[in-house]
Amino acid sequence: MTSRLEPFSFARRIPSTPSIGSSTVTKPDHIHLSFGFAAPHLFPIEQLSASAADAVTQHGRKALQYSGAPGPGKILQWIQERSLVHGIRADLNQILVTYGSTQGIDLATRILVDPGDHVWVESPSFFSALQSFRAAEAVVTSFPIDEDGVRVDLIENALVEAKRDGRPIPKLLYTMPTYHNPGGVTLSIERRKRLVQLAEAYNFFILEDDAYSELNFTGNQYPPLYTLFPERVIYLNTFSKIIGPGLRLGWVIADQQVIQKVRLLNLGGSIGVFTQEILAQLIDNFAFQNHVDALSAHYRKQRDVMAEALREHFGEHVSFHLPEGGFYIWLRFADHVNTSEWVQDAASRGVSFVEGKSFFADPEGYHYARLCFSYVSEEQIVRGVKLLADSYFSYIGREAVRSS
Amino acid sequence: MTSRLEPFSFARRIPSTPSIGSSTVTKPDHIHLSFGFAAPHLFPIEQLSASAADAVTQHGRKALQYSGAPGPGKILQWIQERSLVHGIRADLNQILVTYGSTQGIDLATRILVDPGDHVWVESPSFFSALQSFRAAEAVVTSFPIDEDGVRVDLIENALVEAKRDGRPIPKLLYTMPTYHNPGGVTLSIERRKRLVQLAEAYNFFILEDDAYSELNFTGNQYPPLYTLFPERVIYLNTFSKIIGPGLRLGWVIADQQVIQKVRLLNLGGSIGVFTQEILAQLIDNFAFQNHVDALSAHYRKQRDVMAEALREHFGEHVSFHLPEGGFYIWLRFADHVNTSEWVQDAASRGVSFVEGKSFFADPEGYHYARLCFSYVSEEQIVRGVKLLADSYFSYIGREAVRSS
Ligand SMILES: Cc1ncc(COP(=O)(O)O)c(C=O)c1O
Ligand SMILES: Cc1ncc(COP(=O)(O)O)c(C=O)c1O
Repeated sequence: MTSRLEPFSFARRIPSTPSIGSSTVTKPDHIHLSFGFAAPHLFPIEQLSASAADAVTQHGRKALQYSGAPGPGKILQWIQERSLVHGIRADLNQILVTYGSTQGIDLATRILVDPGDHVWVESPSFFSALQSFRAAEAVVTSFPIDEDGVRVDLIENALVEAKRDGRPIPKLLYTMPTYHNPGGVTLSIERRKRLVQLAEAYNFFILEDDAYSELNFTGNQYPPLYTLFPERVIYLNTFSKIIGPGLRLGWVIADQQVIQKVRLLNLGGSIGVFTQEILAQLIDNFAFQNHVDALSAHYRKQRDVMAEALREHFGEHVSFHLPEGGFYIWLRFADHVNTSEWVQDAASRGVSFVEGKSFFADPEGYHYARLCFSYVSEEQIVRGVKLLADSYFSYIGREAVRSS
Repeated sequence: MTSRLEPFSFARRIPSTPSIGSSTVTKPDHIHLSFGFAAPHLFPIEQLSASAADAVTQHGRKALQYSGAPGPGKILQWIQERSLVHGIRADLNQILVTYGSTQGIDLATRILVDPGDHVWVESPSFFSALQSFRAAEAVVTSFPIDEDGVRVDLIENALVEAKRDGRPIPKLLYTMPTYHNPGGVTLSIERRKRLVQLAEAYNFFILEDDAYSELNFTGNQYPPLYTLFPERVIYLNTFSKIIGPGLRLGWVIADQQVIQKVRLLNLGGSIGVFTQEILAQLIDNFAFQNHVDALSAHYRKQRDVMAEALREHFGEHVSFHLPEGGFYIWLRFADHVNTSEWVQDAASRGVSFVEGKSFFADPEGYHYARLCFSYVSEEQIVRGVKLLADSYFSYIGREAVRSS
């Protein structure tokens, strides 16, 4: 059939630009400070290999079948118990396992947001989340962060003004209160309290993305927003940072009504039945607290090495907040610096980072860059930051010539 | 915080009724003729257990990491080669692995359909697909099937009339041309050709759900619609019926432009990385053709046992098409019979089936019922059909008394 087809108009909901992907550089000695990946040598490979074989042998028929059930009870119970450590009390029917928190974000968005509805986010924010909001045809408004997390005072002003002027209140506010990606900051307890008061007063949902909460470098504890207002906070977490992202398993904790709505989206029976059976087998005899302590100790060390290297090679040329946990250091350069203008040069020198602009809903953030200290070795961090500085100072030199 | 919250208005896109779930009867001797499940004793458990352990040991770091890549090359290559057996030629970048074809349906719908757009389906149709169309706020119109599949002549008339009257052409037509669920029928070659001509002439997409194509009882071959018109057919298939649904892995084959749009939806890196590595390990040394031949032989036998039992116990009271493949026999009763009125009675006697109405977008189909011969044993089929007949004749008896 030879066809001269007219172009087809796809759904408006499809964003025209991709969410940022991973750097495509594949040279073996390339240093990926861009990858927000877990340290692969800390994956519990041996235990998981044994669990995988056992799970298939013992529960193979169940692991391979459809299941209308919410997944192995063991995992739900594990989530329930571990959540208690963070102050979260939830019934089993308030927990839903998802394909990573990426799916959690998407599902929450789809149940709350109609085209044209308003979603408020932090600037910077997590790019996959921004992609979900675009796909839901939401109107996105951003609020800046500082050292204490998102500027709740500005959110409050905006709510007051919106109400006064008859403009829309958001359906959803998306936030990463603890160890923000990419900002590295943590929302203060004062601001947490105020934020949930606003959610109550103005009746919107908070989508709390808590992906990094187990990677705590200081021992400081911050109450999840969920604990302060379970009725209007949808809490998201993931096995990606604590076991391995390849599992693609995360979870949502929310009001029963929310969980029911999410289930009404067509989920094709259970999520990742086979992987869940294997994970259930793993966590059954796994010294999780030790594992998480080891991860936190390792990542803290990496953070310190990176911070030290940054001070040594960049001096006064960057500022950053030393994160209390998580994977990232968020670099702020002078306002006239545009990190998008030297990201390629840095790559050609053998180091990658993520340009600041990728984390913003609007065209801004050019004088920021995200570095990730989790995936690479200490030696690579030191060498990578040095290469980055070479690239930066060469850019600055060219700029100075250009503007003189 | 004690809150007196106003009710929250969730997104309009959320359907108010759940997709049908599995029967919740849990008595061990209950006969589930409702479950559209694979026969668990035919799962390749031993091979999979070994593959799972090997995959984690050998490729654990990869299996557990994020991946920007489209998944293990081995799986894509396997899909590519196996598709050739069915006449489908596709480049690797035209293949996308999904969380089962359930996700494939949802993703295809989301890239094509805006709220208010039209989707045409068969009546009966697959309930999860109907759920995706509702969640996309599509306007759904149904076209009946007969022994040769969907009535393409009626689709043609509707297109002609829509064009003449300036009414909307569908964005998408969803069909299960081969071994229809629940209808058990297969679209004739003539109708296949005509249907793709219509898609070309009226410029809409066909979503071809080919979930059962490997379970071929007769050796008859039908060209997938995709082979007749690759530009406007989105082809879906799944490992659920050939390996096991618990894997939650399926695939889409489509024009590169379509695949790119689907990737723009936020997919959180690769799909089921860990499971894909295990599956890649399995298919590497797996006598797939033998496996599929064994499945087909087994299911054909089951079909014959069920058909025989139906003729014996129901005689002239039901008619059905003997399926050339797949899992289902679709029973048609006299018009005044309402299967929803005795499904509970049947359950109380120890047998479940799916009421006809579950497969229709509009309130209709009450005189149909779906039986599945794949999950249960021969002995259960015989006993189940007998119990079903008891329930039916007791219902008919009550009806006769009521209307006399
Ligand atoms: C803030 C945040 N949320 C969610 C995710 C996604 O996690 P998952 O692997 O569970 O989809 C990430 C991963 O980078 C993240 O940084
Ligand atoms: C026609 C049809 N399509 C798709 C599916 C879903 O398959 P998967 O397990 O790949 O999501 C089924 C399963 O019952 C089906 O019958």
